Amino acid sequence: MAAPRPLITLLTDFGTKDAYVASLKGVILGLNPAAELVDLTHEVPPQDIRCGAFILTEAAAYFPPGTIHLAVVDPGVGSGRRALAARGRGQYWVGPDNGLLHLAFVGAPDLSIVSLENPAYFRPQVSPTFHGRDIFAPVAAHLSLGVNLDRFGPRITDPVSLGWPEPEFNRESVQGEIIHVDGFGNLVSNIPAGDLMAWLGEQSLELKSGPLHLQGLARTYADRAPGEFLALEGSHGFIEIACTGDNAARRLKDGVGLPVEIRKR
Amino acid sequence: MAAPRPLITLLTDFGTKDAYVASLKGVILGLNPAAELVDLTHEVPPQDIRCGAFILTEAAAYFPPGTIHLAVVDPGVGSGRRALAARGRGQYWVGPDNGLLHLAFVGAPDLSIVSLENPAYFRPQVSPTFHGRDIFAPVAAHLSLGVNLDRFGPRITDPVSLGWPEPEFNRESVQGEIIHVDGFGNLVSNIPAGDLMAWLGEQSLELKSGPLHLQGLARTYADRAPGEFLALEGSHGFIEIACTGDNAARRLKDGVGLPVEIRKR
Amino acid sequence: MAAPRPLITLLTDFGTKDAYVASLKGVILGLNPAAELVDLTHEVPPQDIRCGAFILTEAAAYFPPGTIHLAVVDPGVGSGRRALAARGRGQYWVGPDNGLLHLAFVGAPDLSIVSLENPAYFRPQVSPTFHGRDIFAPVAAHLSLGVNLDRFGPRITDPVSLGWPEPEFNRESVQGEIIHVDGFGNLVSNIPAGDLMAWLGEQSLELKSGPLHLQGLARTYADRAPGEFLALEGSHGFIEIACTGDNAARRLKDGVGLPVEIRKR
Repeated sequence: MAAPRPLITLLTDFGTKDAYVASLKGVILGLNPAAELVDLTHEVPPQDIRCGAFILTEAAAYFPPGTIHLAVVDPGVGSGRRALAARGRGQYWVGPDNGLLHLAFVGAPDLSIVSLENPAYFRPQVSPTFHGRDIFAPVAAHLSLGVNLDRFGPRITDPVSLGWPEPEFNRESVQGEIIHVDGFGNLVSNIPAGDLMAWLGEQSLELKSGPLHLQGLARTYADRAPGEFLALEGSHGFIEIACTGDNAARRLKDGVGLPVEIRKR
Repeated sequence: MAAPRPLITLLTDFGTKDAYVASLKGVILGLNPAAELVDLTHEVPPQDIRCGAFILTEAAAYFPPGTIHLAVVDPGVGSGRRALAARGRGQYWVGPDNGLLHLAFVGAPDLSIVSLENPAYFRPQVSPTFHGRDIFAPVAAHLSLGVNLDRFGPRITDPVSLGWPEPEFNRESVQGEIIHVDGFGNLVSNIPAGDLMAWLGEQSLELKSGPLHLQGLARTYADRAPGEFLALEGSHGFIEIACTGDNAARRLKDGVGLPVEIRKR
Repeated sequence: MAAPRPLITLLTDFGTKDAYVASLKGVILGLNPAAELVDLTHEVPPQDIRCGAFILTEAAAYFPPGTIHLAVVDPGVGSGRRALAARGRGQYWVGPDNGLLHLAFVGAPDLSIVSLENPAYFRPQVSPTFHGRDIFAPVAAHLSLGVNLDRFGPRITDPVSLGWPEPEFNRESVQGEIIHVDGFGNLVSNIPAGDLMAWLGEQSLELKSGPLHLQGLARTYADRAPGEFLALEGSHGFIEIACTGDNAARRLKDGVGLPVEIRKR
């Protein structure tokens, strides 16, 4: 830590119309002018913790070790919910204890989590409606200055989990569901492509989802004619349903929660 | 000034679909490669000077001393309106003289304003439709390089004011109005929470606004059940009307200009 | 190259709702922590190569020499289309070979283009659906570290062209068309103002486009009353049709492809 140009990413559901995101950045740069700020996104649908959790971990995987991720999707702000900072997967995580950090924590071998309870690292006045600015941003800035995780508060081991649907691998079929729709309208399922390939072995597959009945996996979008639906391994490593040159979610009028069934053929 | 990494913020109504914002940044970084750029927002509604002024000063309050704020909401570009740079509240301000900087100037004890008239600090060719790129951006860059304010042009003391509605504190009631709707649909009034508390003393309050009749102030959004309206001190320090887990402005189908009346109870 | 703070711009059609843009930035900063990243835009309409090409070159003109432009509008990702890096106009260009870089290449006296074929500069695993992250971003990062263009692959001289409409200058008239609609709804034509002035000489002009019949050029938007249409030299240097205080494209219900005819008067 305390790198010459410590990297802090920001993910929120604040949108970019208001002063909210900028006020987080002002607070951080006031405390650590050397911090390098990168937006993950500020367009998480309002209060959609699950979507925020998905985007956060997808993006974080491409950032270097030591990166500090500041994530605020926080419908319970000002209530009793805890505020967290953590080290895990070689990076740092700061945000509310409401499941937003669940996917970052799950399976991290090096996980240490603290509950943010030391007001010495908060802004002097904490608004009950804006912990992003008054707690999370200054904590991220202090982390970037090299403050040790344990200075922020006591260790905890029971962060709030996200109700995250796991796919079911049976002998005959894999049952999954759509967990994310991206900005192109591609439907991302919770079925990891690697696990699916191991399950399939040498065999081919068919995929059913809503009205779709697709044979085999495409390698890339351009493998199909414009307007055709396809299933493929998305860039996240999950099985994804797309429509070449079009918006699959809009075409299907469906999205998160849509069941996906895969069978050997 | 001339800090190792001088901070320049940008606020415009340009949107982010076009090359306009990026061309400002290119001009600045061409003149001062060390400048650190932070977007406040580029989604001020087109030509909405009042909204721009509100967001600018809300965000600026969280930036460190010496920050340079470049603000361009400029319906009168190329007409006779003056172009300004100023020092005030320990920060710097650059933008058109149309009220956009009014809230930054009001009550600033250290205020010095100059009219930008020295073309040595402009781009060699000034487009009559894009002073943001050709005048304001290079002036901000030169400020960040340590050029003294007075080099840019003569002092002025009569910047254009914004018709900004002030709340009325009477014996029986406070009369205010909604001055801003944020991206969550929260309705921000012009009634400063601190002034209201002083006026209230020990008493409780009731608030009327459009169809709403609210008793008392909530502390935070989570204090009410989903779908319930509430009044509270927003993170800006103004009294705000919100709807827990929902978009209050959309629910009320109302926004800026809506009267707000508060009475002691 | 290998400047202390090399500048890399990003232009994509990814939008900013997802992790895609951030993953590009994470990859770049992981390879070159000193890189300075500037967004041109990520709101190119999905797969609209022509719009991307226009915005890219408009913005790039205001960036300093040596800037690296990373552009990804890539409907053919994972197909046989080549991937390119180039030096031209004193800057660097990285992106798919589908016409997106055409306007950057046209007329560049110092043009050198290579086909990206050296996987030593890619991410270890290249997803067939996301060359932005796995090929273009790491190549841009390596360029910013000073790697010589020729290390990335063999020279090529036949990059894909864009079907870009050129205006026709006749004795009696100039025939052009709208090539871009900006975020304000201004209609940008393909008629360079400088060429038009040379053609006009001392004479005045009249412009016909759809239902519009305009006399002469305005200097700036404020030259007309609110709601009036006008033609003027836009900040890009092209003749542009606008509507003072309003959105001309929405008013006309027209946009890219609309013919524009200019006659001497």
